[in-house]
Amino acid sequence: MSDINTYFQVHAQEFEKDLCTLLRIPSVSTDAERKPDMQACAQEVVRQLLQAGMEEARIMPTGGHPAVFATSKPRPGRPTVLVYGHYDVQPETPLELWESPPFQPTVRDGKIYARGTTDDKGQFLIHLKAAQALNAIHGELPVNLKFILEGEEEIGSPNLPAFIEENKDLLACDVLVISDTGMYAPGIPSLLYGLRGLSYLEVEVKGADGDLHSGIFGGAVPNPALELCRILTALKGPDGRILVPGFYDKVRDLSPEERAEWATLPFDEEEFRNSVGCQGLSGEAGFTTLERRWARPTLDVNGFLSGFTGEGVKTVLPGKAMAKISCRLVPDQDPEEIAHLVEKEILRLAPDTVEVKVRYHHGGRPWMTDPTHPVLEAAGRAAEKAWGRTPVRVREGGSIPIVSTFCRILEVPAVLLGIGLADENAHAPNEHLDLGNFHAGIRASAWLMEELAAQAAAK
Amino acid sequence: MSDINTYFQVHAQEFEKDLCTLLRIPSVSTDAERKPDMQACAQEVVRQLLQAGMEEARIMPTGGHPAVFATSKPRPGRPTVLVYGHYDVQPETPLELWESPPFQPTVRDGKIYARGTTDDKGQFLIHLKAAQALNAIHGELPVNLKFILEGEEEIGSPNLPAFIEENKDLLACDVLVISDTGMYAPGIPSLLYGLRGLSYLEVEVKGADGDLHSGIFGGAVPNPALELCRILTALKGPDGRILVPGFYDKVRDLSPEERAEWATLPFDEEEFRNSVGCQGLSGEAGFTTLERRWARPTLDVNGFLSGFTGEGVKTVLPGKAMAKISCRLVPDQDPEEIAHLVEKEILRLAPDTVEVKVRYHHGGRPWMTDPTHPVLEAAGRAAEKAWGRTPVRVREGGSIPIVSTFCRILEVPAVLLGIGLADENAHAPNEHLDLGNFHAGIRASAWLMEELAAQAAAK
Repeated sequence: MSDINTYFQVHAQEFEKDLCTLLRIPSVSTDAERKPDMQACAQEVVRQLLQAGMEEARIMPTGGHPAVFATSKPRPGRPTVLVYGHYDVQPETPLELWESPPFQPTVRDGKIYARGTTDDKGQFLIHLKAAQALNAIHGELPVNLKFILEGEEEIGSPNLPAFIEENKDLLACDVLVISDTGMYAPGIPSLLYGLRGLSYLEVEVKGADGDLHSGIFGGAVPNPALELCRILTALKGPDGRILVPGFYDKVRDLSPEERAEWATLPFDEEEFRNSVGCQGLSGEAGFTTLERRWARPTLDVNGFLSGFTGEGVKTVLPGKAMAKISCRLVPDQDPEEIAHLVEKEILRLAPDTVEVKVRYHHGGRPWMTDPTHPVLEAAGRAAEKAWGRTPVRVREGGSIPIVSTFCRILEVPAVLLGIGLADENAHAPNEHLDLGNFHAGIRASAWLMEELAAQAAAK
Repeated sequence: MSDINTYFQVHAQEFEKDLCTLLRIPSVSTDAERKPDMQACAQEVVRQLLQAGMEEARIMPTGGHPAVFATSKPRPGRPTVLVYGHYDVQPETPLELWESPPFQPTVRDGKIYARGTTDDKGQFLIHLKAAQALNAIHGELPVNLKFILEGEEEIGSPNLPAFIEENKDLLACDVLVISDTGMYAPGIPSLLYGLRGLSYLEVEVKGADGDLHSGIFGGAVPNPALELCRILTALKGPDGRILVPGFYDKVRDLSPEERAEWATLPFDEEEFRNSVGCQGLSGEAGFTTLERRWARPTLDVNGFLSGFTGEGVKTVLPGKAMAKISCRLVPDQDPEEIAHLVEKEILRLAPDTVEVKVRYHHGGRPWMTDPTHPVLEAAGRAAEKAWGRTPVRVREGGSIPIVSTFCRILEVPAVLLGIGLADENAHAPNEHLDLGNFHAGIRASAWLMEELAAQAAAK
């Protein structure tokens, strides 16, 4: 432990310098004109991986922007850790809102400002620099370490699932480690062990062939907007309980331990309510706000369109109404199965005066590593050393479909050690990263490798 | 009767010629560049009124396009009939869909094609030509006849209510006669004695301050789209009955006579359903389709907008949801009172987790002349002579706010003797009018004046 701390006192500046080199490359994956920058960024990542002592680092083609793969010299008997991250970044617009140029990293108040600092260059780099430190100190790594760093995360990772499937053996590992999320709160290291999945549908209700005069036809011709309201209302009770038969059948209950642990998290309901600006919070009866957001499935209307929606007045009886609805899913719900159940219930509720069509857009599986899994214990000890306090074990309500894809194909647990903070403006102007968390993250990653090695050796 | 028929055989062509003169003037009220045409049209109307033997005819200014007023030589003791119509027309676009130019009247198959034929130049002209015929035959009219022909009907008559109020004495009469609507079906003369009113509102439901990530916040933050669905659903039962307390309190019941008469009207439910293209008809339980459209109030959603409504997928939890809703009203419902009741119920239904605002856009009173009123009997006899069959007495579901404004301010009954047909393309390309109905309409108007005079004399 002291070796690592000592090494850090000497090399911290150098690590920041390497981070800046990465941040200067505008690797915006969505911008076709920046393809050369994407290539240059991938090359710089390869250079830093080799500099960190990885035995092999190379650019691998995908159907889109290339991925970077690296591996340390394989040593039998040691556990294999796969680090996933992404070197592409969000577009920098609107430029005028940046206090310093997005691709000129600038340090202010112990924070480094640039596009990609917290999402995700500054985060995946902690594992690379941890490897560099361990290699420098010990001449080797305590684990077999692999990296897979993609260039298409900000455009939805369209090619990654096929890539993982095709390179299953190359990516084989014992545990997946990702730093691309946030800490629960400043100063509180966080281990994220669960994410919700998604099932997204669109419903269209058709009445008449087109919009009609509401005076001439109103009262005798079905109103598709009102019929759609009636259907959507019937999908969820006023107590927040989803009324689709079978919806909760595969929902894994929150364990008493999880509920107890989450209850100790600093969370101010009133502050949360204020931050979103709503008059009151609501949700499924019998659960706290955190439980509702992290561990309970939802059914939300994401969009609704029917008839005349401009300024003023138009007396139309709409011909059609459309709603986008989606469910956030929790283990062990299956996106397609839920889509099917919701569709079935919608069609059952539909009156025979209107035509109702349901379309399944897409879905993503929920993901969860058992919070008592040994890799989480190892990560917990490592994070505690780095930040000086026991990390909290949390879930999140959003979906990162690639996590469950990795875990499912490679059949491994994952630990998500995020070092970002909620106010660090990921995807927004003035994106930044706390340098204290950057350095703590590198140490945490180094100790995590040591912990995982010790755990494997003890078996 | 034979005098009038004889006169017609001689002058039919001449009447059509005068109609064509009016139709050639592109009096499009919505088009600022056609202000001179509006003026020219008003002048031509004045010319024809004087030619028809009216004692006085003049252009009167309003806040917008002028109105034309005319009166016959007053003869004490005779009933006064006020004819309302409008000389402005809808825009002629899209021009390429017209088979003959919109302002070059063309006769094909006994129908005259041009913008304004059925709406409303060809309709109001029947009363003018009836006066001309009666004056020619008898040297005088059996009634005191007044005309008020406005130039802003197609833009919503913004200045007419104030004009009526200000010219109450000038417009004073015993009965209002309007030809600006349709016949129930070809060959079936129709007396329209009721129109629905309107009360139009907009509801906004606000949850969070903006759209949120549905994964991070979904399940704990209220969904305004779903809350609005819940509110709207609760306003109307699945049986089509409106659940707003007090909503039906002032609804005048359909009389057994009306129901019986309407039941004899030729109406094919299946043909109607097919014409609107909906899978099934629906409405308030216990009423027929015609009753639902003509004599029962409604509550319809005219528009609904919330969240993401583009192509594909966006996982937002909307911050706001908006719906336009309106009620068609029947006698004796009051638009503002109904707006107030609906608003009150919406606010009562709103959960305290969201902010709900209701805005009253505007309304219009329902209108009805008792179907057994003597003026309707007189009109019935006149129409029967002209078309050779007893007219049907009907209501309509739409609103013509100006009718109730006239009747309320002048305190008179009205009879709406429409000679248009549903397929004559009012407001659309290839607008036309059946010349048989035009000529029958002139005779009907002449006989109506004689009937009203006889009725007054018999008192």
